[in-house]
Order: sequence, then structure tokens, then C-alpha cells
Amino acid sequence: MKNHNRGVLIVISGPSGAGKGTICKALLEKNPNLFISVSATTRKPRLGEEDGVNYYFLTKEEFLDRIASDDFLEFAEVYGNYYGTPKSTVEEMLEKGWDVILEIDIQGALRVKENAKDGVFIFILPPSMEELKQRIIKRGSETQESLMTRFKAAYQEINYVSKYNYAVVNDTVGEAVRKIESIIQAEKCRVDRIKEKILDSKEGLIHEQLYD
Amino acid sequence: MKNHNRGVLIVISGPSGAGKGTICKALLEKNPNLFISVSATTRKPRLGEEDGVNYYFLTKEEFLDRIASDDFLEFAEVYGNYYGTPKSTVEEMLEKGWDVILEIDIQGALRVKENAKDGVFIFILPPSMEELKQRIIKRGSETQESLMTRFKAAYQEINYVSKYNYAVVNDTVGEAVRKIESIIQAEKCRVDRIKEKILDSKEGLIHEQLYD
Repeated sequence: MKNHNRGVLIVISGPSGAGKGTICKALLEKNPNLFISVSATTRKPRLGEEDGVNYYFLTKEEFLDRIASDDFLEFAEVYGNYYGTPKSTVEEMLEKGWDVILEIDIQGALRVKENAKDGVFIFILPPSMEELKQRIIKRGSETQESLMTRFKAAYQEINYVSKYNYAVVNDTVGEAVRKIESIIQAEKCRVDRIKEKILDSKEGLIHEQLYD
Repeated sequence: MKNHNRGVLIVISGPSGAGKGTICKALLEKNPNLFISVSATTRKPRLGEEDGVNYYFLTKEEFLDRIASDDFLEFAEVYGNYYGTPKSTVEEMLEKGWDVILEIDIQGALRVKENAKDGVFIFILPPSMEELKQRIIKRGSETQESLMTRFKAAYQEINYVSKYNYAVVNDTVGEAVRKIESIIQAEKCRVDRIKEKILDSKEGLIHEQLYD
């Protein structure tokens, strides 16, 4: 029998500079009942990074073993380091009834979508293209040329919004968080998601109560 | 060009006795920015009923004229009286950007669905079959036999939940209202609904801002 109390996988994604990191942080602070999925990586920890908090730090051998046992919802190699989303942890928490948040870039989200059909895919949009540009500039240490390249890439990435279920404009973090909370609440009321639960509970009740 | 600020049609429906009337009343009191669609009928006003508030009271001739000019989202004849949902008012308010609430029985909702593909269909469920039974009993003035008939009908009607987008259990009115508010908010973030708006605004911005 299907687990009627299974949690919802919520994938929060969007172009670089749209503010998805800040939004996720605020969302989690406000909702301790949400579980954030921590990525695994083969890159070395940076100063202050903790294993199991920022990333699960794995050796390349460990990472390749996990790929072999199909234990990633998605993974990618970037500049010689592997990054991936551990499948078993996410699956375990969902089965326990936790809603799981996954913060991930667009390419990663599209790969997750292939393996998690019932996930909820939310695209974070910058308030405007001008604002996105300013955010990219503020990250600093970029030449004029690389800035323009990153800005054009972010602009192009916005086309991927059509692959997502929801889009949330990051006008203010508070407002974006409230919208994501509403999306999670609404998804828990979607008939596609809870039909069996409703019909099963109806069947259970008729025998006990209809003919008493 | 499509109206990017078009409101959302929210159809609130469910079996008799599930409490949809009470929920709609509370939802509207809390959200004066919602517009409730008033039905038209050919039956005579009852004591205290006002034209344009409880119903639009029409003569049979007026009603048939409106049917002829395709001015109902749905209509039905019940015991010799006509009841219908005026199409032009709903359409006008949606185009002005209002979210429109339609409270209607299941058969009516299914007819609306044929004419309003982008509507959001919410099914109100009683907290339990026992509770539904109690609510039907409380309405009083029914024989034991007719009670059982009504209860079985309500039980059968729950199967129609699969035709809806969302199901909200009426455990408490306050909680059900909050869930409906979340559904409305989430629907306004659905990519299917706002994709063109996002991509249009992106196009508008690139010329002004990308190359400045």
C-alpha cells in the first residue's frame, strides 16, 4: 500500500544571482519541520565548512561507489570535482513524512526531475533583469566581460522556467518565503497527490459508520 | 495579447453537508479582494432574500433569453425552476483582475469545468463520514429513510473528488480557509498560468537593460 503520509520533495532552483540561497535559508529558519537535503561532493572542505552541514565530503572512490549503486538523484562533475544529491537520505526522509527541500542549480534540477516525477519544482526569478545584474555585480571580482557573460547566461537560463511547476519572483525574501509556504500547503491538497488517501479513508469509514 | 493580470476562477464545491457554504462565507469575510459570483434563478425570492445578493431573480423568459445567448457557465432545471451561473459577469471580473469564487454543487462544478478550463476546482471534504452524517442529521426535518438516502448520496459523491484539482478537509473552518488561501496564492505562481507574463517581461527588459 502506498504511504499516505509521504512528504513532498520541493526543488528550489533558478538562475545564479536570483537569491535562491537566501530564500532557502529564511524558509528553513521559519519552518523547522522542513528537511534540507545536503549535497555530497569530492571537493575539499573550505575553511569553516562542516561535513554533513555544508556538504557530505566524500573521497572520489566513495563517490564513484555511490554512483555505481545508483545512490544519486543527480550528480555532475564540475572542474574535476563531483557534486551530487544523495538519493537514499532524501527517500528515507520523504517516507518518514518529512517535506524535503533541495536547493540546486537549473541543470541539476532538470536531472532531478527525471528521477523524481512527484517533486515540486519551483523557479526563483529575480525581481527584474536590472536587479539580477546588480546582484551579479555585487558578488564582485569579475571583469566587465565576464560580468556580461554571466548576465547573458542568467538571462538565457530564465527560459527554463517552462520546465518548472511554479515560479516565484524574489521581490522580497519574506514575500517569496510566504509564496513557497503556500505552494507546499497547496501541493498537500492536490487531488493527484492525495486521491488514494481520501478514497481509502472513505472505504474504511463506510463499514464502521454507515451501517451502525 | 493575453491579459497577464487576469484573475483566477476558484470553484468551491463538494457533497451536501460538507460545509462549503460556511467556508465560502468565512473566506470572503477575510478576503475582501475576492469576488463571489451570484447565481441567477427563476424561483421566487424567499423572505429576506435580496436580488443581486442571494440570487439574481429572473423571469423564466429572461432566463431562457440568457440561455439562448450562451450567457451561462452552467445552468440546470430543478423541480421546475432554473438555476445558472452568469458567464458575462464572471468573465468581466476575471478580466479586471479579480479572483472570482463560485460556490456550487458537484454536478454544477462538472458543467463549469467544461466551459472554464483554467478554473481551479476545490472539493470540500467533511472531516469524516460520521461528521457528515451528523451534519445532515442536524439539518433536521428528515425521516430516517430519507436521511440514509442523503447520506449514501453524499458518500457516493465523494468519488467525484478525482475530477477536481484540490481537496480540502473541513476539519475546522479556519484551517480550511487558510488552505484555500494557500491554493489561490500557489495557483498565481503556477508556471502554466504565468509563463507568458514572465517571458514577455523578460523580453521587455532585455532591450532596456541588458545593453545599457
